[in-house]
Amino acid sequence: MWIFLNDRFVPSEQALISVLDHGFLYGDGVYETLRAYRGRIFLVSQHLARLHRSAEHIGLTNPFGIDEWTRLLEEALKRNDLGGGQAASDAYIRITLSRGEGEIGLDPSLCKRPTVVILTKPLSPYPATLYEHGVRVAVVSVRRNLASAVPPRIKSLNFLNNILAKREASTTGAFDAVMLNHEGMLAECTASNLFFVHEGRLHTPSLDCGILDGVTRGVVMQLSREHSISVEEGAYPPFRLYEAEECFLTNTSMEIMPVSEVDGTKVGPGRPGVLTVRLRGLFHTYLPRYLA
Amino acid sequence: MWIFLNDRFVPSEQALISVLDHGFLYGDGVYETLRAYRGRIFLVSQHLARLHRSAEHIGLTNPFGIDEWTRLLEEALKRNDLGGGQAASDAYIRITLSRGEGEIGLDPSLCKRPTVVILTKPLSPYPATLYEHGVRVAVVSVRRNLASAVPPRIKSLNFLNNILAKREASTTGAFDAVMLNHEGMLAECTASNLFFVHEGRLHTPSLDCGILDGVTRGVVMQLSREHSISVEEGAYPPFRLYEAEECFLTNTSMEIMPVSEVDGTKVGPGRPGVLTVRLRGLFHTYLPRYLA
Repeated sequence: MWIFLNDRFVPSEQALISVLDHGFLYGDGVYETLRAYRGRIFLVSQHLARLHRSAEHIGLTNPFGIDEWTRLLEEALKRNDLGGGQAASDAYIRITLSRGEGEIGLDPSLCKRPTVVILTKPLSPYPATLYEHGVRVAVVSVRRNLASAVPPRIKSLNFLNNILAKREASTTGAFDAVMLNHEGMLAECTASNLFFVHEGRLHTPSLDCGILDGVTRGVVMQLSREHSISVEEGAYPPFRLYEAEECFLTNTSMEIMPVSEVDGTKVGPGRPGVLTVRLRGLFHTYLPRYLA
Repeated sequence: MWIFLNDRFVPSEQALISVLDHGFLYGDGVYETLRAYRGRIFLVSQHLARLHRSAEHIGLTNPFGIDEWTRLLEEALKRNDLGGGQAASDAYIRITLSRGEGEIGLDPSLCKRPTVVILTKPLSPYPATLYEHGVRVAVVSVRRNLASAVPPRIKSLNFLNNILAKREASTTGAFDAVMLNHEGMLAECTASNLFFVHEGRLHTPSLDCGILDGVTRGVVMQLSREHSISVEEGAYPPFRLYEAEECFLTNTSMEIMPVSEVDGTKVGPGRPGVLTVRLRGLFHTYLPRYLA
């Protein structure tokens, strides 16, 4: 595997950073995960725009423009036999942008230049059975980060909040954790956004609930509106999930994942709902327009 | 500089970790900072016990017991001419314990063994003028992490919350930021605990306010009680700082730092107060009993 590190591609065993990198010492950095479909990257500009916003929020210089990033991502795919439209496999891409190496201390000016890492790997698709039967989720006691502390809209290297939530969900055997915000309202899962259907209408927590502005979340909302599926954003208490007829999760690598069970209670009849299946169909039909 | 990395001491330029270390990818790890006074480490057992608790909170294996850690810390000091009681300088020590290298994903079981780093360096003392005149702090809008999201009692590698607060304080020229918790009550500064004096009584935010259980905070409370200085822990709104007669910060490397100004308003007469000076004296008098 070839990894881009700062200014060149190196074999993975040479992709090493200093223990004084502030990304390691303090989690001082941001990241973005992308997906390529047979070499074509899904909504690359949107992901790169979000990376830029995340970096801006923490006062970190984004070293490349969209064109340069895109060129590097495409080269990363090609070097790992994941590019060119003829790739045998879909790919997972992760960009990490940290504050860089510097003396110990919180002050960002201690670091001269950011550390840039581009990792790619063949995408391991989620098992088809999960899409057919849906996954089980658990509402956990770990709350989503306070937006006024570490805004969840920043895709930062501070992931302990999500890790603690995921660990709690794992103890119940759930696929993922549903996290509530500090007011006890539905927020998001550890790496995905949350949707549910109630009385035939699609609902999703609003950005004001303190969540990531997910790229796939945006696509689902766009496709819904284009196909006269009403979608409402709001602040919802967790019991709304128990009364839901359908529920699903969205993110770049799993696209739209049906949820069959919340806290041991079946969602609707306990299998992927009509609207979920329809949206998955629309997603795949319209996928080409989102690819570079 | 010699750095301990996993199982041996290496020159700092060879202290490198993989970009797949979950400490770098996710901030999945904990740390501890210690201070040695001419080679003798301040309250080493307390610091190591807190490291152990932090690790336990995130389900991370602490690879060494207190004796083995102590031996490694002392060796780190010696190798860097900072040990042995005859050291020319006080020393700063930082232990970092991350989840280690592993495939991408939040699941801690992807990492086979934790990464262990021990960094030491001569302590750069804060300028004497700060202790003589006191420092200026600013109450910032960035709130301290929600205890039910990422408990501030865990000394974790997720430091972006504090970095965002420090950046906000820096824009006003302040030495540090005073952070409030989600309920708007005084919590702590970005790397220190907060004390203030009101009507002759010492006050400090209680651990329930969502703060780190600071080692020096504990020493100040112990010394106060031993010398009939009443100290009260509680939940205090920020205006209590504006009415305070005295205010100071505590942490391992700065010990007891007087605060002369909060948000541009002088604290008392705007210079270190009687009780602050007395506690600094007690701290230095009793320091030997806290050294290894």
